[in-house]
Amino acid sequence: MEARKDLLDIESLTMEEISYVLDNAAPMKQLFTRSVKKVPVLRGKNVLSLFYENSTRTSSSFEVAAKRLSADVTEFSVSTSSVKKGESLLDTIETLQAMRCDYIVIRHSQAGVPGVVAKHTRASVLNAGDGHHAHPTQALLDAFTFREKFPEVAGRRVVIVGDVEHSRVARSTSRLFHRLGIDVAVLGPSTLIPDARPDHMKRLRSWEEVFDWRPDAVYMLRVQLERQEGQFFPDIPEYHGLYGMNSARLEQVRKLGAYLMHPGPVNRGVEVTDEAMQYERSLISEQVENGIAVRMAVLHWLKPNTGGSAL
Amino acid sequence: MEARKDLLDIESLTMEEISYVLDNAAPMKQLFTRSVKKVPVLRGKNVLSLFYENSTRTSSSFEVAAKRLSADVTEFSVSTSSVKKGESLLDTIETLQAMRCDYIVIRHSQAGVPGVVAKHTRASVLNAGDGHHAHPTQALLDAFTFREKFPEVAGRRVVIVGDVEHSRVARSTSRLFHRLGIDVAVLGPSTLIPDARPDHMKRLRSWEEVFDWRPDAVYMLRVQLERQEGQFFPDIPEYHGLYGMNSARLEQVRKLGAYLMHPGPVNRGVEVTDEAMQYERSLISEQVENGIAVRMAVLHWLKPNTGGSAL
Amino acid sequence: MEARKDLLDIESLTMEEISYVLDNAAPMKQLFTRSVKKVPVLRGKNVLSLFYENSTRTSSSFEVAAKRLSADVTEFSVSTSSVKKGESLLDTIETLQAMRCDYIVIRHSQAGVPGVVAKHTRASVLNAGDGHHAHPTQALLDAFTFREKFPEVAGRRVVIVGDVEHSRVARSTSRLFHRLGIDVAVLGPSTLIPDARPDHMKRLRSWEEVFDWRPDAVYMLRVQLERQEGQFFPDIPEYHGLYGMNSARLEQVRKLGAYLMHPGPVNRGVEVTDEAMQYERSLISEQVENGIAVRMAVLHWLKPNTGGSAL
Repeated sequence: MEARKDLLDIESLTMEEISYVLDNAAPMKQLFTRSVKKVPVLRGKNVLSLFYENSTRTSSSFEVAAKRLSADVTEFSVSTSSVKKGESLLDTIETLQAMRCDYIVIRHSQAGVPGVVAKHTRASVLNAGDGHHAHPTQALLDAFTFREKFPEVAGRRVVIVGDVEHSRVARSTSRLFHRLGIDVAVLGPSTLIPDARPDHMKRLRSWEEVFDWRPDAVYMLRVQLERQEGQFFPDIPEYHGLYGMNSARLEQVRKLGAYLMHPGPVNRGVEVTDEAMQYERSLISEQVENGIAVRMAVLHWLKPNTGGSAL
Repeated sequence: MEARKDLLDIESLTMEEISYVLDNAAPMKQLFTRSVKKVPVLRGKNVLSLFYENSTRTSSSFEVAAKRLSADVTEFSVSTSSVKKGESLLDTIETLQAMRCDYIVIRHSQAGVPGVVAKHTRASVLNAGDGHHAHPTQALLDAFTFREKFPEVAGRRVVIVGDVEHSRVARSTSRLFHRLGIDVAVLGPSTLIPDARPDHMKRLRSWEEVFDWRPDAVYMLRVQLERQEGQFFPDIPEYHGLYGMNSARLEQVRKLGAYLMHPGPVNRGVEVTDEAMQYERSLISEQVENGIAVRMAVLHWLKPNTGGSAL
Repeated sequence: MEARKDLLDIESLTMEEISYVLDNAAPMKQLFTRSVKKVPVLRGKNVLSLFYENSTRTSSSFEVAAKRLSADVTEFSVSTSSVKKGESLLDTIETLQAMRCDYIVIRHSQAGVPGVVAKHTRASVLNAGDGHHAHPTQALLDAFTFREKFPEVAGRRVVIVGDVEHSRVARSTSRLFHRLGIDVAVLGPSTLIPDARPDHMKRLRSWEEVFDWRPDAVYMLRVQLERQEGQFFPDIPEYHGLYGMNSARLEQVRKLGAYLMHPGPVNRGVEVTDEAMQYERSLISEQVENGIAVRMAVLHWLKPNTGGSAL
């Protein structure tokens, strides 16, 4: 397996690389039960965190992961930074490049930005979410979490529920699941299910069809309340009524023995009721914990370009 | 002495525990005069800082304390976080729990929140101030500071001046002082002195009564300018005239040889004049320094629940 | 050479001290090409970062520098801090003093503030920019960068272009360059060139005069768009037309073999066109990299006052 500099999306990974990361996340996770939850593998390395969109959960997860590998983490706080003074993205990248950081963790509202950054820097770039495009560490943590429950994932079934159209989670996770041989279906308002969706994304039209299909996990997407203004569905109560995980649906999920997943943070009462949050087969917390383990595995795996010559 | 997971308030501590923390803060403080101000006792541990109310002083104090014990500190910045996106407190706790952090330092405007967090997580929870309820590390640092001056504290006298009613500092510190055998009195506007105050909180009605009582320390509370809108006292100049530490009163304090304390940050010209800030027996800076030592002692003492099983 | 506690400006440094810092930045820079970019020289030391004006670049540069020396860095975030609650600067200093930090990195909009802080604390104070006064680490990194290209700097020529009047960069850098024997000239709108400028600051009146003078480097200053409101020059396009680095001027610069410098962040299309940013003799990125090396050399060099007695 060749060394890889960046993690930008799921598409560009080989199956061998995917297995490598998933396999290596397991010993990382075991570390969390030890008294000293730290290994010195990235000692003396700099991780730079660059979040153009706020996300405490994801940025904290990367930060904790990096520190457990003994790296030094510096937050390049975009909201108060030169970016506000009108600095172009390319100049910011050039600055980071010049600071000789080893890893750049970046989230940006525009698809493709992490790829541009990767091309212009020797540092390893980790895409922490770009527009509607990709969120590869989310996909990897989802796969790791699912695989912990089903060591043989091929032939298993996962249904993704909600705003599939605008979700980089749906995009990355469904793609990775498909490559692992998991059957993927989607359910959601017709305005939020892409017409031009990949063949492997089976469309289901109702919860009845979902339960008939007998999924092994139901993956509820987050409703982006802040982006939604009556554009794609009438209102929240109606959305919850049609697509939310409520008592009646939870009962069906329970009968199937299926798991419940969600990328977090949950809008309680919208995607999932308080009651359903207590479901004994909810994997939501495990997704958070596994997120750190998977990000450690990714950081450990990527190899910054340490060539001495300028780009 | 049994191990303790959380520090939520002063009431729940035994006298033995209080002595243990105060005794152990002394060697921590000695560390500050050494060239390497750091010990490896919390190496590989994660401290998560979660401030729902801003307080640079208190959060920096905890951060420096944790780093001097070699812990890794992650700030879970609430103002820019998912919390804003409507995440419930319980879900935030579940996330922190899943991240497997060892210590959570939390400040919240609502009384009782740190206790709720403590119940739902294996991590040790340190209350850094909750509503009007408690601020136990402030009380411990106040006691440590007072004890440095009076090794035999029993029978000594401290008067607390200001908004006793709404002050978690007054609440926690007076309680701890009382348990240590220190006599506590209060002075303040009648609207700001609780009617239902504990027996040990002697009410004084004027500065004359204060000086007649011969306190060993005068503890000035901070006026919460941002919360005050003419509700509890007419205006700042009148408050300062009636309750502030001015030249004439400082002269009396000096005659008694009494110390001056304040939790910081001081509103100069409100609680304390510029002149009084120069008082040779002011302990305000020592309170800051001791705050770090005491927080180190507390962090070192608490034991997270490391049981492998889920809660 | 005597030990020095603070770095406040260029004027107070001896030539021996300047050489010492510039010489020691070189091995620091070499460190960046190693796998472990870290040395333990400041292990167990606390660096406190106190930025009253936002500057992600400068604060990140100091943070990375401190961490590469193994120091612990705490950001005392002013915007959300007690400062907002009306705390006086002196009380903030007293707090930092009491926290026993070893180094304070401070930026403030008022000239002289770092000097006041330095007088009141045992910690070493590093001025990261104060008003229009000084920005000494910028001057040192500029000198280090220039010296890398011209080991014999004496007799070399640098022209500084732009708002010289309000620029602490111009002030500090021109002064240091002059002391190193470099000839310094300035070009800019007459409203932005100080009448009472030092003798060593030769005034040029046009780009023709600049090119006739044959500079070895052209140092473009940043236009403070946020401070400029038609006060000092009519508008941005006119400024760019008269003083910006455009294609025609770049061609002249290229013919001279001169270097291009800028303190960053660049306003593209104002001081420098996109095309000129690609100039093969631009030193802008090297200035960023060298900034970390120089700040490491400064941190390593300064000696906090560790005397046990109170100030």
